[in-house]
Amino acid sequence: MREAFEELMARYRVAAELAEAAAVLDWDQQCYMPPAGAEGRAEVAARLGRMAHEALTSPELGELLSRVEPWARGLDPESFEASCVRALRREYDRAVRVPADLAGELARQAAAGFAAWIEARQARDFRVFQPALERTLALTVEKADALGHGGERYDALLDLYEPDLGTAEVARIFARLRTALVPLVQAVSERADRIRHDFLASGFDEAEQWAFGLEVLRAIGFDFRRGRLDRSEHPFTTAFHPDDVRITTRLRDDFGTGLFGTIHEGGHALYEQGIPSAWRGTPVGTTASLGIHESQSRLWENVIGRSREFWEHFLPVARRHFPALGDVPLDDFYRAINAAAPSFIRVEADELTYNLHIFLRFDLERRLLSGDLPVGELPGAWREGMRSLLSVEPPDDLAGVLQDVHWSQGMIGYFPTYTLGNVASVQLWEKARADNPGLSDDVRRGEFGRILSWLRANVHAQGASFTGVELLRRATGRAYDPEPYLAYLDAKYRALYGL
Amino acid sequence: MREAFEELMARYRVAAELAEAAAVLDWDQQCYMPPAGAEGRAEVAARLGRMAHEALTSPELGELLSRVEPWARGLDPESFEASCVRALRREYDRAVRVPADLAGELARQAAAGFAAWIEARQARDFRVFQPALERTLALTVEKADALGHGGERYDALLDLYEPDLGTAEVARIFARLRTALVPLVQAVSERADRIRHDFLASGFDEAEQWAFGLEVLRAIGFDFRRGRLDRSEHPFTTAFHPDDVRITTRLRDDFGTGLFGTIHEGGHALYEQGIPSAWRGTPVGTTASLGIHESQSRLWENVIGRSREFWEHFLPVARRHFPALGDVPLDDFYRAINAAAPSFIRVEADELTYNLHIFLRFDLERRLLSGDLPVGELPGAWREGMRSLLSVEPPDDLAGVLQDVHWSQGMIGYFPTYTLGNVASVQLWEKARADNPGLSDDVRRGEFGRILSWLRANVHAQGASFTGVELLRRATGRAYDPEPYLAYLDAKYRALYGL
Repeated sequence: MREAFEELMARYRVAAELAEAAAVLDWDQQCYMPPAGAEGRAEVAARLGRMAHEALTSPELGELLSRVEPWARGLDPESFEASCVRALRREYDRAVRVPADLAGELARQAAAGFAAWIEARQARDFRVFQPALERTLALTVEKADALGHGGERYDALLDLYEPDLGTAEVARIFARLRTALVPLVQAVSERADRIRHDFLASGFDEAEQWAFGLEVLRAIGFDFRRGRLDRSEHPFTTAFHPDDVRITTRLRDDFGTGLFGTIHEGGHALYEQGIPSAWRGTPVGTTASLGIHESQSRLWENVIGRSREFWEHFLPVARRHFPALGDVPLDDFYRAINAAAPSFIRVEADELTYNLHIFLRFDLERRLLSGDLPVGELPGAWREGMRSLLSVEPPDDLAGVLQDVHWSQGMIGYFPTYTLGNVASVQLWEKARADNPGLSDDVRRGEFGRILSWLRANVHAQGASFTGVELLRRATGRAYDPEPYLAYLDAKYRALYGL
Repeated sequence: MREAFEELMARYRVAAELAEAAAVLDWDQQCYMPPAGAEGRAEVAARLGRMAHEALTSPELGELLSRVEPWARGLDPESFEASCVRALRREYDRAVRVPADLAGELARQAAAGFAAWIEARQARDFRVFQPALERTLALTVEKADALGHGGERYDALLDLYEPDLGTAEVARIFARLRTALVPLVQAVSERADRIRHDFLASGFDEAEQWAFGLEVLRAIGFDFRRGRLDRSEHPFTTAFHPDDVRITTRLRDDFGTGLFGTIHEGGHALYEQGIPSAWRGTPVGTTASLGIHESQSRLWENVIGRSREFWEHFLPVARRHFPALGDVPLDDFYRAINAAAPSFIRVEADELTYNLHIFLRFDLERRLLSGDLPVGELPGAWREGMRSLLSVEPPDDLAGVLQDVHWSQGMIGYFPTYTLGNVASVQLWEKARADNPGLSDDVRRGEFGRILSWLRANVHAQGASFTGVELLRRATGRAYDPEPYLAYLDAKYRALYGL
């Protein structure tokens, strides 16, 4: 049976290597490809994707998988082999359940949807995007039904990004957060004038931003022998495998866009670099879920990176790069990087209001999928949701329903993982602090070895051995739990705004 | 039959797209991959290579090819379809004749040979490399015999890089060149003190070199919308397709290494960018031969780039980048960039002596392949050849037989194309001048539109429709002919050294 397992792994490796090649092409496209190279590149990437899909869904692989499953169930469930078989079963079932024709149609529609979305953004008019989104939604409904669910169609899609959690549980978590956060945001809004942050808004030299970003990445433990930082239009992380993890950032004129983007992607990258190298090209040689992935980026970006302790160490460093910060007191600086206020654009939102943008999308997605909300009524529902959550209304569709690329790509069910990541980031941080007294003092000294080791052991080194929910339970004793996150936000923002 | 042709092209496209993906991975590896990424990258690239080979050699493709050949022979031989079928037949036969086992063994041996070569270079001792080279040679002999030849084994290998020329013809061309060039080099050596070039040896700012290189590339017509320049340890050109052509350079402290390397790769790139975009992914969407490829790099690097006319325009530009050139007269500068002297290292050799390094390698390769020269006697034969050709003897194997990577990779039969490129570069230049009176005046004004147009029409736009020999005959009326090149070198160097 060991031999059958090895053959199964060898077959899986074909799919993994093709996916790795596709990831290199994608990184190149976003970072360095000359403009005219774009044409046709999508076809080559799609070819690799199709071949990877064929390798993963081959009948031979399916038969081997069925053959080794009884054997694997007899092994220690924490063993590499048992974990591989579990993870592969999940991946295989997902892949075979969506018929090849539908998968091809979804891929073509993703390209068409993206083009329509770009056009609609230029026109600042949702109606230009509407027919494409209607088609994307219809295909996504087909896909959800093909994947299978017990009545709640959203479950099938959510499960692709955050397995074993379920829509009902997400709804419960979000409802709890919403009840507490909407009034907190309201209270903060009324005291907006208590925090000055104009001195971070412009005049920050790009080359110095770049150098400072590298310095911070090195300090938190990003391994440049096994990764690199580049620039791209939208920051992202891509891991070809644990020993080659690429992150990107974008630099603007202000202090925060580049730096916090860099730390955010750095957090994703530390996760990817922490997966055992030996697991490369195996079903467990990846991450547990998107929620857990986001917990790592948010933990470094917000819980650590926007803490007062972090800047006790790094503000003097920053002052060497940016003389304008020379006379800014630490407390003023700390308050400025944490200023919160309702705004229109999710990716520019602060730590506190960010979640409200997610609640809106989760609600709209569920209503779209169930058929309660016709696509044509989406802009109105968006505005109404923004009013009730954030008490603001976007001036046009570009600042509203057209702001995110996700739906154009058929990525429905993805948004909740951003807030789940926030939730998990604080659960993990609190447990790490309980296990390591004095962790905040480490941060004060710019020392991140202990927190990184804790994350390595409890999160990164698990790879995809467990689902996100299970990993969190093993690491912290609880599945996604909004209470620590709420307590963290409440304490932080009450102190910041003197509430 | 049109349908069968289209299906044949669709099948070929699979191989072409996989090769394109492999080329992106290779570019990334040489330009940006972090150190630890190297491990395992070769396996992914090899996987893509194997899949491309499988797609190219599939029985279905072979049958389609046989089916459309009679139809294609009835078409205009210059038509896209007829050219595709001819080019594919050549490529297909080459691919199927080498058994998969042997191809795999050669690939593995290339990796092992490279490792042994690196080790031997560190030890400066050929004996460390000898066992690996013996094995590589044995496999290469097998490969040549599998490819087939009429008794001269070298023919089979040469044909991979320069089809339809033949070893005997190369030997004839090289003998003619050798007879004239050895005494010319001798005469030049005796007058070495007539040219000063120390003022180009150091102190050239890297950022200015980079900027000047970009300026020259733009001037000669490199299209940055369809390509880019990066840095790598060894300069190279790779074309993913005509609309995405990547070149690299390396910058040293001196004036010439970076700049002439950049122009050289720029010449290769102009060729690749000149292949019709619509031919991408077809059997003719590539270049005619390595000799023709090299003719383009040498034409721009040497015939144009080291001409006095070129520097009438560019020396004032260079002075803006490098103040140290401010008081160097044009004639002194021109002589300095053309100084010639016997030396040990091929890639650092000047335009004149370069060919003598090639004659040596061609001679040794033939004797190795025929069995006349045992591998163990190679270092001695190398030293002897250097003495008789260039009257110098390398101090050790590193400056001698261990200097080139080619043999470690099993690339035997490749070296002649460098001198064939030199030969063709002058044939093409002379014909272009005959067709365009005043072309040298264009160069004096930094205008390259007419020469590029001529090359586009007569070389680049042909893609792989014809072999290099045939392309040259169509463009200039003659196959590879050493006489124009000899006359060019003779006139240039007699003038330079007052002979």
